[in-house]
Amino acid sequence: MPALAPPTTHGAIALPLGGGEAEPLSTRYAQVRTQSVRLAAPLSPEDCQIQSMPDVSPTKWHLAHVTWFFETFVLERFEPGFQPFNPAFRVLFNSYYNAVGEKHPRAQRGLVSRPGLAEVLAYRAQVDARMERLLAQPAGDELTALVALGLQHEQQHQELMLTDIKHVLSCNPLAPAYHAGGPPPVKTGTPKPFGWQSFDGGLTEIGHAGPGFAFDNEMPRHKVWLAPYALASRLVTQGDFAAFIAEGGYREPRWWLSAGWDWVQARGLQAPLYWQRGAAGWQTFTLHGLVPLDPCTPVVHLSYFEADAYARWAGARLPTETEWEHAATVSGAAAGAPNGCGAGGNGANLVDRGVYHPLPPPDAAAGGLQQLFGDVWEWTSSSYAPYPGYRPWSGAVGEYNGKFMCNQYVLRGGSCATPANHLRASYRNFFPTDACWQFSGLRLARDA
Amino acid sequence: MPALAPPTTHGAIALPLGGGEAEPLSTRYAQVRTQSVRLAAPLSPEDCQIQSMPDVSPTKWHLAHVTWFFETFVLERFEPGFQPFNPAFRVLFNSYYNAVGEKHPRAQRGLVSRPGLAEVLAYRAQVDARMERLLAQPAGDELTALVALGLQHEQQHQELMLTDIKHVLSCNPLAPAYHAGGPPPVKTGTPKPFGWQSFDGGLTEIGHAGPGFAFDNEMPRHKVWLAPYALASRLVTQGDFAAFIAEGGYREPRWWLSAGWDWVQARGLQAPLYWQRGAAGWQTFTLHGLVPLDPCTPVVHLSYFEADAYARWAGARLPTETEWEHAATVSGAAAGAPNGCGAGGNGANLVDRGVYHPLPPPDAAAGGLQQLFGDVWEWTSSSYAPYPGYRPWSGAVGEYNGKFMCNQYVLRGGSCATPANHLRASYRNFFPTDACWQFSGLRLARDA
Amino acid sequence: MPALAPPTTHGAIALPLGGGEAEPLSTRYAQVRTQSVRLAAPLSPEDCQIQSMPDVSPTKWHLAHVTWFFETFVLERFEPGFQPFNPAFRVLFNSYYNAVGEKHPRAQRGLVSRPGLAEVLAYRAQVDARMERLLAQPAGDELTALVALGLQHEQQHQELMLTDIKHVLSCNPLAPAYHAGGPPPVKTGTPKPFGWQSFDGGLTEIGHAGPGFAFDNEMPRHKVWLAPYALASRLVTQGDFAAFIAEGGYREPRWWLSAGWDWVQARGLQAPLYWQRGAAGWQTFTLHGLVPLDPCTPVVHLSYFEADAYARWAGARLPTETEWEHAATVSGAAAGAPNGCGAGGNGANLVDRGVYHPLPPPDAAAGGLQQLFGDVWEWTSSSYAPYPGYRPWSGAVGEYNGKFMCNQYVLRGGSCATPANHLRASYRNFFPTDACWQFSGLRLARDA
Amino acid sequence: MPALAPPTTHGAIALPLGGGEAEPLSTRYAQVRTQSVRLAAPLSPEDCQIQSMPDVSPTKWHLAHVTWFFETFVLERFEPGFQPFNPAFRVLFNSYYNAVGEKHPRAQRGLVSRPGLAEVLAYRAQVDARMERLLAQPAGDELTALVALGLQHEQQHQELMLTDIKHVLSCNPLAPAYHAGGPPPVKTGTPKPFGWQSFDGGLTEIGHAGPGFAFDNEMPRHKVWLAPYALASRLVTQGDFAAFIAEGGYREPRWWLSAGWDWVQARGLQAPLYWQRGAAGWQTFTLHGLVPLDPCTPVVHLSYFEADAYARWAGARLPTETEWEHAATVSGAAAGAPNGCGAGGNGANLVDRGVYHPLPPPDAAAGGLQQLFGDVWEWTSSSYAPYPGYRPWSGAVGEYNGKFMCNQYVLRGGSCATPANHLRASYRNFFPTDACWQFSGLRLARDA
Repeated sequence: MPALAPPTTHGAIALPLGGGEAEPLSTRYAQVRTQSVRLAAPLSPEDCQIQSMPDVSPTKWHLAHVTWFFETFVLERFEPGFQPFNPAFRVLFNSYYNAVGEKHPRAQRGLVSRPGLAEVLAYRAQVDARMERLLAQPAGDELTALVALGLQHEQQHQELMLTDIKHVLSCNPLAPAYHAGGPPPVKTGTPKPFGWQSFDGGLTEIGHAGPGFAFDNEMPRHKVWLAPYALASRLVTQGDFAAFIAEGGYREPRWWLSAGWDWVQARGLQAPLYWQRGAAGWQTFTLHGLVPLDPCTPVVHLSYFEADAYARWAGARLPTETEWEHAATVSGAAAGAPNGCGAGGNGANLVDRGVYHPLPPPDAAAGGLQQLFGDVWEWTSSSYAPYPGYRPWSGAVGEYNGKFMCNQYVLRGGSCATPANHLRASYRNFFPTDACWQFSGLRLARDA
Repeated sequence: MPALAPPTTHGAIALPLGGGEAEPLSTRYAQVRTQSVRLAAPLSPEDCQIQSMPDVSPTKWHLAHVTWFFETFVLERFEPGFQPFNPAFRVLFNSYYNAVGEKHPRAQRGLVSRPGLAEVLAYRAQVDARMERLLAQPAGDELTALVALGLQHEQQHQELMLTDIKHVLSCNPLAPAYHAGGPPPVKTGTPKPFGWQSFDGGLTEIGHAGPGFAFDNEMPRHKVWLAPYALASRLVTQGDFAAFIAEGGYREPRWWLSAGWDWVQARGLQAPLYWQRGAAGWQTFTLHGLVPLDPCTPVVHLSYFEADAYARWAGARLPTETEWEHAATVSGAAAGAPNGCGAGGNGANLVDRGVYHPLPPPDAAAGGLQQLFGDVWEWTSSSYAPYPGYRPWSGAVGEYNGKFMCNQYVLRGGSCATPANHLRASYRNFFPTDACWQFSGLRLARDA
Repeated sequence: MPALAPPTTHGAIALPLGGGEAEPLSTRYAQVRTQSVRLAAPLSPEDCQIQSMPDVSPTKWHLAHVTWFFETFVLERFEPGFQPFNPAFRVLFNSYYNAVGEKHPRAQRGLVSRPGLAEVLAYRAQVDARMERLLAQPAGDELTALVALGLQHEQQHQELMLTDIKHVLSCNPLAPAYHAGGPPPVKTGTPKPFGWQSFDGGLTEIGHAGPGFAFDNEMPRHKVWLAPYALASRLVTQGDFAAFIAEGGYREPRWWLSAGWDWVQARGLQAPLYWQRGAAGWQTFTLHGLVPLDPCTPVVHLSYFEADAYARWAGARLPTETEWEHAATVSGAAAGAPNGCGAGGNGANLVDRGVYHPLPPPDAAAGGLQQLFGDVWEWTSSSYAPYPGYRPWSGAVGEYNGKFMCNQYVLRGGSCATPANHLRASYRNFFPTDACWQFSGLRLARDA
Repeated sequence: MPALAPPTTHGAIALPLGGGEAEPLSTRYAQVRTQSVRLAAPLSPEDCQIQSMPDVSPTKWHLAHVTWFFETFVLERFEPGFQPFNPAFRVLFNSYYNAVGEKHPRAQRGLVSRPGLAEVLAYRAQVDARMERLLAQPAGDELTALVALGLQHEQQHQELMLTDIKHVLSCNPLAPAYHAGGPPPVKTGTPKPFGWQSFDGGLTEIGHAGPGFAFDNEMPRHKVWLAPYALASRLVTQGDFAAFIAEGGYREPRWWLSAGWDWVQARGLQAPLYWQRGAAGWQTFTLHGLVPLDPCTPVVHLSYFEADAYARWAGARLPTETEWEHAATVSGAAAGAPNGCGAGGNGANLVDRGVYHPLPPPDAAAGGLQQLFGDVWEWTSSSYAPYPGYRPWSGAVGEYNGKFMCNQYVLRGGSCATPANHLRASYRNFFPTDACWQFSGLRLARDA
């Protein structure tokens, strides 16, 4: 059995044990694992095969890789008489763990037709059965922690499955829908003006303080000094963004970072990803297929460059991640609460997941912060960097987060494609500045 | 109905009517169409989805495109009350006919998951039923000619299906086999020395002279002057080529064309495509999976550069296409005759198609030319150019051949993946100098 | 006269007036302008023409562009009866100011042979004469501020001239030297161990507080909270870095950021830029030509990736820019003081500028921070971002800094190629993570 | 002294001795060598430094490389006590002779500022003095042949110098002229219709038959069979080509080879290289700077794709090289005769070389072939291939031509930038299908 050597020899921390969850680990395991298969249910074997760009992974690969995570990090270590389902999968479904050994090149995931979807589902079923047996025994701390991590990991891939399949289907000129049954009724209306919520700043703390699970990149909790600031009460909407376009936003360099302007020019961009101008005006490609623009729906699939340019045009700026987390904490908004659309009312209504929801009326909670969790990931101006005193987890999972802390920017809040119970105020998502296929939008900020 | 305007306004010729075939057109239609589906039978929906490089098309696309050919060029014109199976397919499965209108970009064929394989097979079945009805009536000259062309076209794509799926499967690190049942028994032995067959040259003619079908690029038959020359009695084998490698063939620029040496250096090549050095020596990836090198089997998947370099190293040269056709004609070798492996004995033995066959013993026909048809496509030194007096076919099918007559080289003879009844001495295949995923090898030539 | 419209309409600050300088503005103008020509003196017209990669500008372009800066931002505005030297230069030598209008594409600067070096020197002379006339009159605040900015700007380009010409000459297989007269004598010895200097942290302030000139990106001065930390007493040396290489640093992914490892692999890197292994060991290309490695000289020309990997291997980390500025401030080190080599003793000794100097003996100031200013730019782990409350300068010069605050990391301290009177503790230099042709190295940091 | 080993071991021929020249070898040497320096006289050191694209070489490199040819192939072999001017030049100025050893990479020729132009001229002077001493002695056959080859080689580079510097200057937005003194007076008028000159064809011969110098690629003279054909009496003019553009030639795929259409689309082409549409209509960049279109001047700087598309649009085709050579031979046109503009009347009038001349009135020689030599290189439809029985020269100069016989097409006739005494009916120039910076145009052909 290959040693899962730590990626660095210096300073590492133990995995979190979590705690406080209502259900036993085996129940949570079954719930999360079932949900992944449910998300793939509307898809054909061909849908699940395609890698439409290097950043995208095939659905089939996601289903296999999250299973590989349990097989490699849990069963290989804790299962008596461990035998792999297929020894070749150890390399084939390794994403980026150098400590595990060789990896199939990322950009070639879509070139592997065998195992097919059916065999991957059989792989899942076998690993689930073995995990079930393992979890039927009393579990020690390390096993518990690794399973909990595997479930968080799988939830992240659930969002990626929706993110990626949307891109895959968008490449088809027939514009097929992920969801059967046709698009939801067209919304109309004009987004109401937003308000500014001010915060005093001062010496405060951010970062995960427990209890419950958190990734190593959310720790340690640490002091920061904040100048006074204000955040917009709601997200920027499709209607807001259409005004930016109509006023020449994509033709005027002064709104853009230099690298952003180069990006716009090199690609000849005139609107966000998935927008197309039809005879009857703007349409956007969604998991329900092509739908008309909804002025009140949060704009989504913005790159950092687009979010930053919009903010500058609007006379504002992006929030820092410290401002965002501070505001989310002190304003008492909680992940899973009904002010977000993904989590709204029927957070479990998976049929609607992955399509943008109507905003709550902005006057419903005048002045308060709305849509903090579960609508769109909100770009912040903060580069993804280790917190002061950061230490990666020990073992191969130490590669989970730390080695990506460079040339990416932090997004906060979670999207309508994120599992509702996966979010928290300290959660740090991250993408490069030109990435836009994820469910990303923005909220304006300014100095107070 | 869009007009199928000719690509050029100047000089075009009518499609050949063919003639002399034993079976009626409807019977031949059924045979060819069934064979395509049979070739796809060992493949999963995922296998049929993948485009492993821009030159490769997904199996599913091949199955749909050849059907599109009949729907667009035959049914759209001759079927009363024509209604397309799906109007979007007109663009989606157009390969390169500008006269037909828009085309889905070639490099993005692998990004279209829907229609899936099942729907494409339904498309085939519906078009076949409509064609059957049409062919049950007496057919005029133009209809007959277009159907005959469609069948030749589909036979070309049958070879491409095998060519492309081999590349697709080769990209899988698990090296899966197209053929079930394991590889054939390993051959051993040393290739016997070849002999030289000399030809006097003089004023001769090449090109199709009828009767029977031929592509426009095989015409008109025309006079050429040939200096005396000689051809090797057999193809170059894997064993021959291994000696070139062992003597440093890939490290020595003097054997290579300048552009070929650049190609070798830029890719760090050390052996032909699909060769890999294992613990027990060279292996090659085949439609039966990885098999050990067979010294007596013709070497295949050579680029023009590699074929040319080998010939130079061997103190010889590639034949011109004129020399090849002249030799094939005067030596009386006929396509379909049992001296070729693809056509050998069991030309219809489809199980064996696509894997290289053992050579007939070179002394079996000492001095005579062997393996002219149905083993590997033989690179010639002739650039693919129009024959003197060449005219493309009239109508959209005028784009079939002529517009590719540039920066490609002619190959002759046909491979073990070519349908046995598809070949003839005047047949001209063509590929760019760096292409090597097709079943291409070489026969040596020299001045006499 | 084209309006120099501000790049953004929201919030901008006035240029600094500076103050406290000993010499009058016209004297300083003459000094700085003369120095640029002096730096180009060892170069031929051909040397001054070459753009060896898109990041590099020809020496001739630097000489012209800094002149363009005065002509466009000062003379065009303040000179009565302004007539440009050559109207085409307004576009040709505009670097990146969209508010000024069109720009010649950056990557094509090396394609412009005319004007030649002689004409560019004539351009300089004419502009200098006109500036001299202008500065002979009493100057208002705005004029004073713009001239002061132009001089700071020209000093930045003086460093870039040395940085770029080093890269240009390094591309010549003859390895020619910028400095005539041969390399300095070879140093030998082993770098002495360094010490750790600890700092308590707490609530502190960074940023320029005046008096004197500062760029807009150094402001406003603002509060930050610092956890306790320690910095190494000296820079990492060539000898230190050679040990990293010898222990397989470039072959082991666990020391590298994921993007850094991709960068190493894609380029097959085995050592820093300008290092080459000769028969007698490592050599580095310098402005004196190829010289043997000097174990005591600070390692230079590291990318962020290499600096970060070295720090991880050494069980340490990079400092943040806040840590660096705080340490430089409280330890009392001052730019221009004799602990830096570029500024050391003979800061004006231009013959030595641009070649790495021997370290002062590390025990000379045991425990104290050495080499803070004027040796190599020190990579920090801080992404280049606006300070809280940042406002760009008003007018076209608002594009000077702000639009580059993305995907770059901050470097502090200044190098041996930086003019000695150009540095200060709050100075922020910045480069992308893969840039290594600038004079960049590192100092280790750790949590205290 | 490194051996100048032949690139292939099989079959090579001796260099031609030439003969029949009026002047002694030493006189011809002096004439050709002087002419190269004269061509560079209008250029600055900066002009001579630039490599504006990989295909272009700096003027300085041309001047040095042709000198290297004499030093390496003549002096190194025949000079007693040979000492190189600079040993590093052996690699630095080797173009593509693998048998000579290492080569400085072609795409990096523009990165070498030292030696500068002055040192290269000194290199020329020293080599010339040594050659003069050598040629003052009676010369054997091999020496004579190598010097003659070196002079032909230098004449080829004289054309390349003009070809390349035109591209270099065209990259400067100021559009500077190579020739001082302003452009020649604008021509006006409409090109007269051309006539067709018919040829019977039959069994004929092409290739060099001596006496006099010829390259190995012009041999051996060999029999070919020609079908009857006709050639246009004059070249296609700028006015003719403007009509093609005006009728949508660049927007209509049916005129283009498939690869040509891809090339047009990928680059967004709308006109030939160096054409730009100004307020007053089309202008072209020439060695005299920007000049208005002259409808009667031959169109030049066409790629093979453009020449082929024009011919198809005109209801004609390109000639084969056999047709061209046969026609040039039987029509009695001779290189150097006054029907070509480059050679016209004042072939030695170097001031006019490199700018397109007015056509002789087409009725001046009704029916006869005009402009065969010295106006523009005429694209033929013939792929550049070895003649039957081709053998390269022995020794390193065997790499001169043969290894480029692939993926290029033959051009005949010579341009206004070709030395007048360098051309002959059997001369074969060659370029890839997308190259257009050379002086290339076309003459129409058709079947008779």
